[in-house]
Amino acid sequence: MNDNPNSNNNYYPGLQGVIAAETIMSSVDGQRGELIIAGFPVETLAENASYEEVVYLLWHGRLPSSAELAALRDELAARRALPAPALDLLRAAARRAVKPMDALRMAAGTLDLDAAGDLAPALVARFPTIVAAYWRLLNGQEPLQSDPALGHAANYLYMLSGERPTDIQTRALETYLNTVSDHGLNASTFTARTIISTGSDLVSAVVGAIGALKGPAHGGAPGPALDMVFEIGDVQNARPYMLAKLENGERLMGFGHRVYKVRDPRAEVLSAAAEKLYTSGSALQGDIDLYNRAKEVERVAVELLAEVKPGRNLQTNVEFYTALLLHGLGLHNDLFTPTFAVGRVAGWIGHCLEQQRSGRLIRPGSRYIGTPANAWTPLEERAL
Amino acid sequence: MNDNPNSNNNYYPGLQGVIAAETIMSSVDGQRGELIIAGFPVETLAENASYEEVVYLLWHGRLPSSAELAALRDELAARRALPAPALDLLRAAARRAVKPMDALRMAAGTLDLDAAGDLAPALVARFPTIVAAYWRLLNGQEPLQSDPALGHAANYLYMLSGERPTDIQTRALETYLNTVSDHGLNASTFTARTIISTGSDLVSAVVGAIGALKGPAHGGAPGPALDMVFEIGDVQNARPYMLAKLENGERLMGFGHRVYKVRDPRAEVLSAAAEKLYTSGSALQGDIDLYNRAKEVERVAVELLAEVKPGRNLQTNVEFYTALLLHGLGLHNDLFTPTFAVGRVAGWIGHCLEQQRSGRLIRPGSRYIGTPANAWTPLEERAL
Repeated sequence: MNDNPNSNNNYYPGLQGVIAAETIMSSVDGQRGELIIAGFPVETLAENASYEEVVYLLWHGRLPSSAELAALRDELAARRALPAPALDLLRAAARRAVKPMDALRMAAGTLDLDAAGDLAPALVARFPTIVAAYWRLLNGQEPLQSDPALGHAANYLYMLSGERPTDIQTRALETYLNTVSDHGLNASTFTARTIISTGSDLVSAVVGAIGALKGPAHGGAPGPALDMVFEIGDVQNARPYMLAKLENGERLMGFGHRVYKVRDPRAEVLSAAAEKLYTSGSALQGDIDLYNRAKEVERVAVELLAEVKPGRNLQTNVEFYTALLLHGLGLHNDLFTPTFAVGRVAGWIGHCLEQQRSGRLIRPGSRYIGTPANAWTPLEERAL
Repeated sequence: MNDNPNSNNNYYPGLQGVIAAETIMSSVDGQRGELIIAGFPVETLAENASYEEVVYLLWHGRLPSSAELAALRDELAARRALPAPALDLLRAAARRAVKPMDALRMAAGTLDLDAAGDLAPALVARFPTIVAAYWRLLNGQEPLQSDPALGHAANYLYMLSGERPTDIQTRALETYLNTVSDHGLNASTFTARTIISTGSDLVSAVVGAIGALKGPAHGGAPGPALDMVFEIGDVQNARPYMLAKLENGERLMGFGHRVYKVRDPRAEVLSAAAEKLYTSGSALQGDIDLYNRAKEVERVAVELLAEVKPGRNLQTNVEFYTALLLHGLGLHNDLFTPTFAVGRVAGWIGHCLEQQRSGRLIRPGSRYIGTPANAWTPLEERAL
């Protein structure tokens, strides 16, 4: 490793264009709009797999047998309860009304207080418990016990609302969680790999990843995409509303992505899932009219962006239909990013396991551009 | 950003040789054994500055005036107390006897529960409070209130032991904290920069950095270097003891560094500080005999490594004299890495402020080496 301050070579701002890891977790082809998760196109995996199957796939590199799947389901169901100090901390956080992502970060950081057994399934099992418990506390309700008869996705919806979801609702959430379960070396996944590469532990890695996901340049802004649909109201207003935003120098939330130069393949999957949810009358908030308006807003937005920002290839990203789908499952905007984390934690951990197998420290260098060595000026001789 | 899975270029395992940031925080020249911290050679800064001056320097790029320094000292002294939930969490952690670095990570993660004012000085002010409070709880003692008349370093020693330190003891700790306050783009600092680069917050960044520092490949192993000196006992045994270790395929802790190919300049600074502490009779544990034995063990170790592993340039690193110096200040081995964090947090935050000014997301790519797109196999058709 070289931190030679005289080196002018090999500086990659933001590490753009640098390959930092080889992985079997997922493949993101931004030019062709293709996402493969552990060997399966996202379209196939998202719609067919249970979330438990995706967890197994990401951690073992293959789909589980019936017995293996049953064992993982049982283990996850058995490890949902939080250590008492985690719940105490969530109560304290709710009294101060901290944001759900901060509460998730704080509580996830305490999960090794109950250190029995493998931390990987405990982390996955407890993310929904933390988010649901915190949401209820924040709204003056007591947290609910999990229902061990329910799978991972269904139980999350149950612990949020106290209502057992329908199969269509469960399938919609599961499709979402699978869709976002992994996505190359995004900033949170890269953070987790860097932390674990020092020989640190899974809780430390996952807590760091939550902190990175929280940032608005990463996972922190799906809410505004849906807010825009509500603000537009009648689709007649879509074009003038969005044109005014663009002329005002604002971005259209839900459009454009750092990697994808065509339509984000996840948008397609989530759009189809939202259509099923809303057209079947299974949505817990909104209806087919909302779905149709969102589709029309998307159409106008993409058309308008091509006119106003030609050559930029600003297409629908994962946030737009995340917001629509999760809204239909009864989730408040403030739960969108925490629910992203509920899905992504399986990928974070899979990457950590892969990084541990490589055994290599992640440690880039920096280039010093400050002043060369100064002499010391005693305090009394400094300018006031 | 390109996650193109077909790209074979630009793969840098461990990001070795890649410059990920330009910085005015510090310059590490591993070939020449030179460390410059914000414009000052570590030798100059460590011995002359108070820790508060180093904090100011790292965050503002210049030394403070008397008035600026007094203002920062006052602010740090005023913000040492922990939010109640942080203390509750430390009590719960102590009942489960979690390691001090994990307790520091957990408690630091709750510091935005008390969100009044700027988080940067609150984090620096409270790291010593967390470590000292946790150490006392772990040993069945109640945490102490800070003494606002004491500076940052002196107050840390006071909150650990309940004894106000002498000037020589305070100077020794301050020299240590200054020495480790920043060191290029090490894994914890890089973690903090990656997290903050998404638009996340300082608490999230610092908590991620603690998780990375905890790993034994980064800051996690200064204790064994001193243990070796104790196990050797009479210096006559030094050579056969260490030779047996090397022949057994073990590493000598405290020697060798990924960046430095000559003696770590921090070892020189800390050796001189340890000499002052032990020769003045100010050590709280150990005496001049221990210091002399450590020096002799170092001499024999470097000589032996040159013989047994020629061409590897395995020189004394920062851990060897960290352990000796902090031992002399009465600190248990388990406090060495948390005390490293107490010093380094100023650098983490300085890098975060610098990263925020750059406004750029840190987001490398990965190369997919898994299977290409598979068709789905329903559960009932899979092999058992």
